[in-house]
Amino acid sequence: MSLLDAITFNDAGLVPAIAQDAATGRVLMMAWMNQEAFEHTLSTGFAHYYSRSRQKQWKKGESSGHVQKVIEMYLDCDGDTLLLKIEQTGPACHTNRESCFYKQHMDGEWTTIEEPMT
Amino acid sequence: MSLLDAITFNDAGLVPAIAQDAATGRVLMMAWMNQEAFEHTLSTGFAHYYSRSRQKQWKKGESSGHVQKVIEMYLDCDGDTLLLKIEQTGPACHTNRESCFYKQHMDGEWTTIEEPMT
Repeated sequence: MSLLDAITFNDAGLVPAIAQDAATGRVLMMAWMNQEAFEHTLSTGFAHYYSRSRQKQWKKGESSGHVQKVIEMYLDCDGDTLLLKIEQTGPACHTNRESCFYKQHMDGEWTTIEEPMT
Repeated sequence: MSLLDAITFNDAGLVPAIAQDAATGRVLMMAWMNQEAFEHTLSTGFAHYYSRSRQKQWKKGESSGHVQKVIEMYLDCDGDTLLLKIEQTGPACHTNRESCFYKQHMDGEWTTIEEPMT
């Protein structure tokens, strides 16, 4: 079975991919890949995703320079989620924060726990 | 804005939730929550998800005992993905492995890197 055949893409042809900092273990973001994005990730060694709003695949960091070098890649038990351990250049989040998960549940509110990099 | 209002559920009324071991940082699984599962997670302190195959919300570990105590919870920048740092009892994966991400990309194949707990 090919690498691709083992992946269950959803009805829209997409699979969620979690990006985790390979050095620190921090979860940085979750995005979607289509088949093309997965193949480009494999062939280049840098994370590519599919933008649902722009309806095209893109290399993460292609405009910002905040690329993700793939160190390890995993597929889950039922083949419908990918986990990438990556080496992140600059912030992963488009808000200029290290991680997209910067709002923490505290006392019934989502509290911002991280400020943008300057 | 309420905790719930900040979450963008998809067309099926679901939001992906990543479960990460709070102690080790290992990503254990990714599953889906509907509004009810999110509310039960908040009110009980244990992870609840929505089963797309069974079309109902369920407490993780309700039959196996492999529950997930929520230590911290995060929402991402665009409000459409949750991250739970949890304390996992037993294996997280239904295959009896610690993590669902036990197939690693190696030399063009998905290689099983972890055996089920005995």
